[in-house]
Amino acid sequence: MSREEIKTEVFIVSEMEETGEKKKSKYERYVQPCLAEVLGTFILVFVGCMSVVGNSGTSPMQPALSQGLTVAVLITMFAPISGGHFNPVVSLSFYLCGEMDLFLLLPYVLAQMIGATIAAFLTKTLYPADLYTKLLGGAFVTGAVGTAMLAETVFTLILIVVVCLGGINKVTQSPWAPICVGLIVAANILSGATVSGACMNPVRAFGPAVAANHWEDHWVYWLGPTCGTLLAVVFIRVFLGDQKTRLVLK
Amino acid sequence: MSREEIKTEVFIVSEMEETGEKKKSKYERYVQPCLAEVLGTFILVFVGCMSVVGNSGTSPMQPALSQGLTVAVLITMFAPISGGHFNPVVSLSFYLCGEMDLFLLLPYVLAQMIGATIAAFLTKTLYPADLYTKLLGGAFVTGAVGTAMLAETVFTLILIVVVCLGGINKVTQSPWAPICVGLIVAANILSGATVSGACMNPVRAFGPAVAANHWEDHWVYWLGPTCGTLLAVVFIRVFLGDQKTRLVLK
Amino acid sequence: MSREEIKTEVFIVSEMEETGEKKKSKYERYVQPCLAEVLGTFILVFVGCMSVVGNSGTSPMQPALSQGLTVAVLITMFAPISGGHFNPVVSLSFYLCGEMDLFLLLPYVLAQMIGATIAAFLTKTLYPADLYTKLLGGAFVTGAVGTAMLAETVFTLILIVVVCLGGINKVTQSPWAPICVGLIVAANILSGATVSGACMNPVRAFGPAVAANHWEDHWVYWLGPTCGTLLAVVFIRVFLGDQKTRLVLK
Amino acid sequence: MSREEIKTEVFIVSEMEETGEKKKSKYERYVQPCLAEVLGTFILVFVGCMSVVGNSGTSPMQPALSQGLTVAVLITMFAPISGGHFNPVVSLSFYLCGEMDLFLLLPYVLAQMIGATIAAFLTKTLYPADLYTKLLGGAFVTGAVGTAMLAETVFTLILIVVVCLGGINKVTQSPWAPICVGLIVAANILSGATVSGACMNPVRAFGPAVAANHWEDHWVYWLGPTCGTLLAVVFIRVFLGDQKTRLVLK
Repeated sequence: MSREEIKTEVFIVSEMEETGEKKKSKYERYVQPCLAEVLGTFILVFVGCMSVVGNSGTSPMQPALSQGLTVAVLITMFAPISGGHFNPVVSLSFYLCGEMDLFLLLPYVLAQMIGATIAAFLTKTLYPADLYTKLLGGAFVTGAVGTAMLAETVFTLILIVVVCLGGINKVTQSPWAPICVGLIVAANILSGATVSGACMNPVRAFGPAVAANHWEDHWVYWLGPTCGTLLAVVFIRVFLGDQKTRLVLK
Repeated sequence: MSREEIKTEVFIVSEMEETGEKKKSKYERYVQPCLAEVLGTFILVFVGCMSVVGNSGTSPMQPALSQGLTVAVLITMFAPISGGHFNPVVSLSFYLCGEMDLFLLLPYVLAQMIGATIAAFLTKTLYPADLYTKLLGGAFVTGAVGTAMLAETVFTLILIVVVCLGGINKVTQSPWAPICVGLIVAANILSGATVSGACMNPVRAFGPAVAANHWEDHWVYWLGPTCGTLLAVVFIRVFLGDQKTRLVLK
Repeated sequence: MSREEIKTEVFIVSEMEETGEKKKSKYERYVQPCLAEVLGTFILVFVGCMSVVGNSGTSPMQPALSQGLTVAVLITMFAPISGGHFNPVVSLSFYLCGEMDLFLLLPYVLAQMIGATIAAFLTKTLYPADLYTKLLGGAFVTGAVGTAMLAETVFTLILIVVVCLGGINKVTQSPWAPICVGLIVAANILSGATVSGACMNPVRAFGPAVAANHWEDHWVYWLGPTCGTLLAVVFIRVFLGDQKTRLVLK
Repeated sequence: MSREEIKTEVFIVSEMEETGEKKKSKYERYVQPCLAEVLGTFILVFVGCMSVVGNSGTSPMQPALSQGLTVAVLITMFAPISGGHFNPVVSLSFYLCGEMDLFLLLPYVLAQMIGATIAAFLTKTLYPADLYTKLLGGAFVTGAVGTAMLAETVFTLILIVVVCLGGINKVTQSPWAPICVGLIVAANILSGATVSGACMNPVRAFGPAVAANHWEDHWVYWLGPTCGTLLAVVFIRVFLGDQKTRLVLK
């Protein structure tokens, strides 16, 4: 069995029509993926917010493992349905690498914002209001804005490099990709929690921002991850990708 | 090798007769699965109770990892024998998705209750009586009943979505499913330990309740997980399942 | 690809002659496995002792993960050479299930005792003498002997059930077995560290006992795991095994 | 499917030309691997330094998991491009086992030094200067030099044994090897953090040394890992390797 044979296609929406055993219905191609993104993002942000507000100390171990493991599980489970993005910049990277249609990008991002917002409100219901307001679910800039911006850029760059190598680039695609994405999320939070929270996901910040109506410096969590994603895609499409993914240096 | 070929059937009792290399005897079809559920649930609840009573601090890291890893290991090992449920609402979800015969449901739940009760008494033997009575193995409502009820519903919903997608729904079935179920148990406990304990399993609460003879609000750990399971099964059978699993929207 | 095809034989010494691509030399069949057991047990006990003496707090998280992950890695790596036992009662369980020749059992146990002793002395060299003597590498009875004895029996029973189901019993054999054995070691230590240390391995206690010349209640760590192993083997060979492994109830 | 068929070649640069579906261009054979080593080592050392400086307590859990998980992810992702070394002594072990051309060894080590240095300076930018200077990213000798030297030798020996068995030695090669290397890194840090930091990687120490201009005892982190690597390679090539890898005792 060659290396090529054990590759499994993960994350990839555009190829799903071909691999499905039966032809997919319109519901399965357009509506179901968006519903899956709502549910998956809900689970991810709910677990994330709950673990931050309920964290028993100052160590980021609890939120890091909680969110990293959840990402690993959710991508494994939802990848065949929606690609398992749960993150606007992951969807963006798939679009920029030619693996996702533009007309699905906006619905995906909307679905992710809806799921995240429901999750944040549910967390608010479960914890005493003052505790929630004090902690805000954990993705808010507490130090210098420039530092947070730089940290979000670099951590998202790392995340998207793993997403692109594991999920898009043929030579490096791997059945371990969903687990790897989850583990790198955990590792990044363990590394960067005290600087910017290592959010790496605009809707992970957006949900709690709506629920707490707290918008100060919120743009950092959209701009930082987007810059990191653009850098990662450039690295992949110029330097690291295989002959199909690379645009130059063939 | 296509995606379909690397799927492995996990959890599924009803298909086991067909995949067995030799025809299964009556003992292997009816008695052995129940014995496996007794032993597996015993191990799960024993490790769970021990880790809660022996927890060295207030952080849920120790009980969360202990129970999550044990769930992952036990499902991997016992799935070919009994499906690896160890949880009445997991058995219920298999029944509701048409993957388990009704006449096995009650014996399974009884087996799980027996295993859990033995485990709780053994934990009581190993720890000083006062320590056990104070901590009670950890699945008791400490805050508002409504909050605990809601939290159990949502966390069990998340668990059963993963169980159904990974173990029943053909399109998303995965050899990683047992590991994923264990990891989502760990993630949920890390997120919800301070609200309701994130029990997600009626017999995980039932065993310690018998050993401590403590029944206050015990119904929460049966009703909450059941509600979560019903919601998860509706999501799967109406929206997220594949053409075989979905009842509508074909 | 059927379930049967993706099984990999792990742990099993006696089948290695057949699966080797070339015929194994005498060196590879008798000497190399014992050297592998020396090196592997050295690594396991070294990492274990270092993590207990160097533990930064009272939480068992650090020793539990350190030893559990090391077990998982070592079994994965050494299984094709020696079966990856590193534990006299694991060797015993393979012998009792008919998967290991009797004349290899004693050399294996001797190899494990040698590796463990070297590891304990090296740990003693790396830490200040008083620190080592105070902590003794962590496998010593601190509470009631009966409690420790019972705890070692039950935790080893759990370990050996996983070893037998994952490595011997054909129906449940799994490529995940080495990882599962490591994870259940971690989970057991997280659960039982405060009761008996959850040693589950006579030589893990033997090495530090030699290095510290501390033999009080040492027999507990030989008798407890042996009782647990005998119970586990009875469960497997009478109730839980497949038609080949089960001795009765066919 | 035989054991041999499910082996995947990981880490191995020299075999990549043959397994590539299309013939590799010069860019892909010489330039891309070095770029991958720069990026991969940057990510590894960045996550490592950030997790040490930002560690919320004295426990090594946070840096250990952060770096171990990152190693696992990076090897999985970059192995098909560059072998996924990110560590001069890993490259050295591949060269000594005949799996890497000598003329690539120096460029690899240079690439790793560049990546590590960029990472250390970026960490310095993200944290307040005094915090960084005080903690120095964590790979500096704090106790006796001899103890640190011995500890680095033994921990690197363990790491390289896993690397060689998992990535080079045919009989023990495993698709789990990248994960195993990451897990043993985590386990080693959990065990040896208080003695020498369990660096096991010269450039992991080199980067922060440049950024902090702190060279006291820096040679320990080059000499210790090199000694450990030489010992590990001797073990593999003399005792533990298969008939192809072993030089003697055939």
